[in-house]
Amino acid sequence: MPMKSSHKDALRDIVGADHFTDAQEECLCYAYDATRAQYLPEAVVFPGTTQEVADVLRLADTHRIPVVPRGAGSGFSGGALPVAGGLVMAMNRFNRIRSIDTDNLVAEVEPAVVTAHLQAAVEKKGLFYPPDPASYTFSTIGGNIAENSGGMRAVKYGVTRDYVRGLEVVLPSGEVIHTGSACAKDVVGYDLTTLFVGSEGTLGVVTLATLRLLPLPEAKQTLTAAFGSMAAAARTVSDVIGRGIVPTTLEFLDAPSLQAVERYAPVGLPAEAQAFLLIEVDGDADCIAGPMERVRRVCTENGALQIRLAREKDEQEELWRARRAVSPALRSISPYKMNEDIVVPRSRIPEIIDSIQKTARRYDLPIVSFGHAGDGNIHVNVMGGTRGEADVPKMERAVDDIFQATVKLGGRISGEHGIGLAKQPYIGLNLDAPTLALSRQLKRTLDPHNILNPGKIFPQETDSASSF
Amino acid sequence: MPMKSSHKDALRDIVGADHFTDAQEECLCYAYDATRAQYLPEAVVFPGTTQEVADVLRLADTHRIPVVPRGAGSGFSGGALPVAGGLVMAMNRFNRIRSIDTDNLVAEVEPAVVTAHLQAAVEKKGLFYPPDPASYTFSTIGGNIAENSGGMRAVKYGVTRDYVRGLEVVLPSGEVIHTGSACAKDVVGYDLTTLFVGSEGTLGVVTLATLRLLPLPEAKQTLTAAFGSMAAAARTVSDVIGRGIVPTTLEFLDAPSLQAVERYAPVGLPAEAQAFLLIEVDGDADCIAGPMERVRRVCTENGALQIRLAREKDEQEELWRARRAVSPALRSISPYKMNEDIVVPRSRIPEIIDSIQKTARRYDLPIVSFGHAGDGNIHVNVMGGTRGEADVPKMERAVDDIFQATVKLGGRISGEHGIGLAKQPYIGLNLDAPTLALSRQLKRTLDPHNILNPGKIFPQETDSASSF
Repeated sequence: MPMKSSHKDALRDIVGADHFTDAQEECLCYAYDATRAQYLPEAVVFPGTTQEVADVLRLADTHRIPVVPRGAGSGFSGGALPVAGGLVMAMNRFNRIRSIDTDNLVAEVEPAVVTAHLQAAVEKKGLFYPPDPASYTFSTIGGNIAENSGGMRAVKYGVTRDYVRGLEVVLPSGEVIHTGSACAKDVVGYDLTTLFVGSEGTLGVVTLATLRLLPLPEAKQTLTAAFGSMAAAARTVSDVIGRGIVPTTLEFLDAPSLQAVERYAPVGLPAEAQAFLLIEVDGDADCIAGPMERVRRVCTENGALQIRLAREKDEQEELWRARRAVSPALRSISPYKMNEDIVVPRSRIPEIIDSIQKTARRYDLPIVSFGHAGDGNIHVNVMGGTRGEADVPKMERAVDDIFQATVKLGGRISGEHGIGLAKQPYIGLNLDAPTLALSRQLKRTLDPHNILNPGKIFPQETDSASSF
Repeated sequence: MPMKSSHKDALRDIVGADHFTDAQEECLCYAYDATRAQYLPEAVVFPGTTQEVADVLRLADTHRIPVVPRGAGSGFSGGALPVAGGLVMAMNRFNRIRSIDTDNLVAEVEPAVVTAHLQAAVEKKGLFYPPDPASYTFSTIGGNIAENSGGMRAVKYGVTRDYVRGLEVVLPSGEVIHTGSACAKDVVGYDLTTLFVGSEGTLGVVTLATLRLLPLPEAKQTLTAAFGSMAAAARTVSDVIGRGIVPTTLEFLDAPSLQAVERYAPVGLPAEAQAFLLIEVDGDADCIAGPMERVRRVCTENGALQIRLAREKDEQEELWRARRAVSPALRSISPYKMNEDIVVPRSRIPEIIDSIQKTARRYDLPIVSFGHAGDGNIHVNVMGGTRGEADVPKMERAVDDIFQATVKLGGRISGEHGIGLAKQPYIGLNLDAPTLALSRQLKRTLDPHNILNPGKIFPQETDSASSF
């Protein structure tokens, strides 16, 4: 049911005419995200205060208008797509870092602050906000919270959830709640904070976040190592962890990634390299050489073909070239790409990579895997083959096989991107029926009229009696 | 309404006659916790399997029998007290460490495993489970999860929540859900795990936990410093953190604590000492001397009267004597003690200590404060004065004043112990009405008949229409 013009007038009254649009050419800008899908919203509002967010949601709840909160629209699972039409709530105006408290190591941040901007601001004060999703130069804190974003440094520092101390959240009813606090310990009532972190914009709209900071590590060293087999690289990963080293970053590229990189922008890897690791260690300046030397030794013991070590920033950037080249290199293989982000217990990486390579052969498709070996989180890119778009059904079967293999190894179908729209058909692979039922109940409790980001996370129920 | 004998028969059928009792002398053993209160249950069951837990809860739900899950009964807020009678579900038989996975740094642990036993078991394999509530030699993992227990090492390592990856939980309906996973990253659906951590046994019964482990730090150094004023000690705390040092432990004792310790078991502190810090640093053996030297320098700069440093385990134990003596020393002051665990942003410690000392003078009561300076979490012990039990109302007014002052400084009324029964009247100081309303709604969603640990966390509502 399209939005009535009276509702549009009411929305203009709430946010001001300058902060509302239903012009199609403007709405188009809010129809997409980092997936390929597009859904045109009927209107976009740009609230400027928590009260305006509350008033918009209350109106939407009363009139059953779908509302999709939106940060930078950089998500990979469709979480910001207005699949049911209605309203996009663009949070752009919530773009202030309200405070950085150097005594208590917390910051108060509005949701549209870009992650990299927050990082730069706290680093100027000698502090550190670790979560670093690949999109960090444009994704926002609000989006990071909605998706519980991870990143390269999660192996040592954890994910977004581990840095959210408290939230101001507007519920679909328009009620404003305050979860958690700036305190380091807090056991007053249920942990509502974490219920919203990773809820993909389906339970409430975050208007303010209290984030935990750390002291900025003094120094960092970077090492890359090329191996003749994935098995040797995987043994290296296990051995590094097994010797009690906690690297900041532990990334890997598989053989198809290396081939793609070498074709796109050669970085001088040995021709026989079948796997590549990038390992960083950070900490006090006088304390990282020891662990890094142990990392180097582990690489040598496992037969690394080439090892490079960088202590200075410029050299480090050079070592990152191969890792950073993968994503652009993939575009040169095929415009058709299904970008999954499975996660397995770290020790199961060799098995899942083996299984993925078998899947590639079975369907005769390029499948390129790389990512966060340190936490078992693998970006699996199933690429189109020679037949272009006609390969898509085959690609979908390959993804299905990979998810099945992941679950058999105790893994999860998403480590970073979320379920959104893209992975709904697969959620049952990880969540059993009672767990999914409880999740749906929570959604109903917080959003009884299902106005907030409807159609996300939960697969359509066939039984209409229990649909919402 | 007392339990019917038919219900007792049904419970015996579920768990076996050996694992059920309604003998008053046995029920008495499950009537207490670490608070002074006692409430006699009508019966106690000792389920042995998840299925039995589910069957007991389903029966209880059908017949509206209150059920209070119980670990070691060592809680300080009354969470394990059967205030509404009914059934205590003692989890004692869930006492196995099912696995310790050294490759993936996770353990699968049943809820009745004692925290210290888990720690010893993982340390044998070179691993580390950091949460260490003071009760860790007898409290259980299930209780720690229910209360989101903290401890001495939280300043560096966080609290129980930060180590729970996944849970098997039986809901009050008898449905069994599985939250999270063993994976380091996992964004499949809502974060249900954390909803149960800290829910004080009101939302579900944990039957299995997947816990995250760390590599065991190689070495530790311990330093104690005595200061002539609380202000100097507080400046030291700020400066340590401000210089980017992340100590493992940063404990303090105030002047009344030191007096109590010196009377009880003298440890040789300077007579003019008004505050005492205990600071530990852990990590790689060759990397802790540097930070510890910086700690020592900060102490000296802030005019420490006495500094002692211990590198070896025996010497370290000696330095811990003052800190460990506080709790027993308090018993020698008065049998009447109200043990609160407020938390403030770390930089507000001097203000709250000042306010607490004013409260002590106002009511002419000994008030002894000590605890976790590093995370602002202070154990405030309001002691009975010369009039013994007659001082109790005055003690309650003092606690009230302290909570008010805490909240004014941006603090929380509980950092470790939880709300339970003891702090219900105060929960509104921290949770505004919409936040409390949402919390109650969640309780109703998961436990519509309010059978699981009824009467906890939420204050009685005067409006009977909305009570549950």
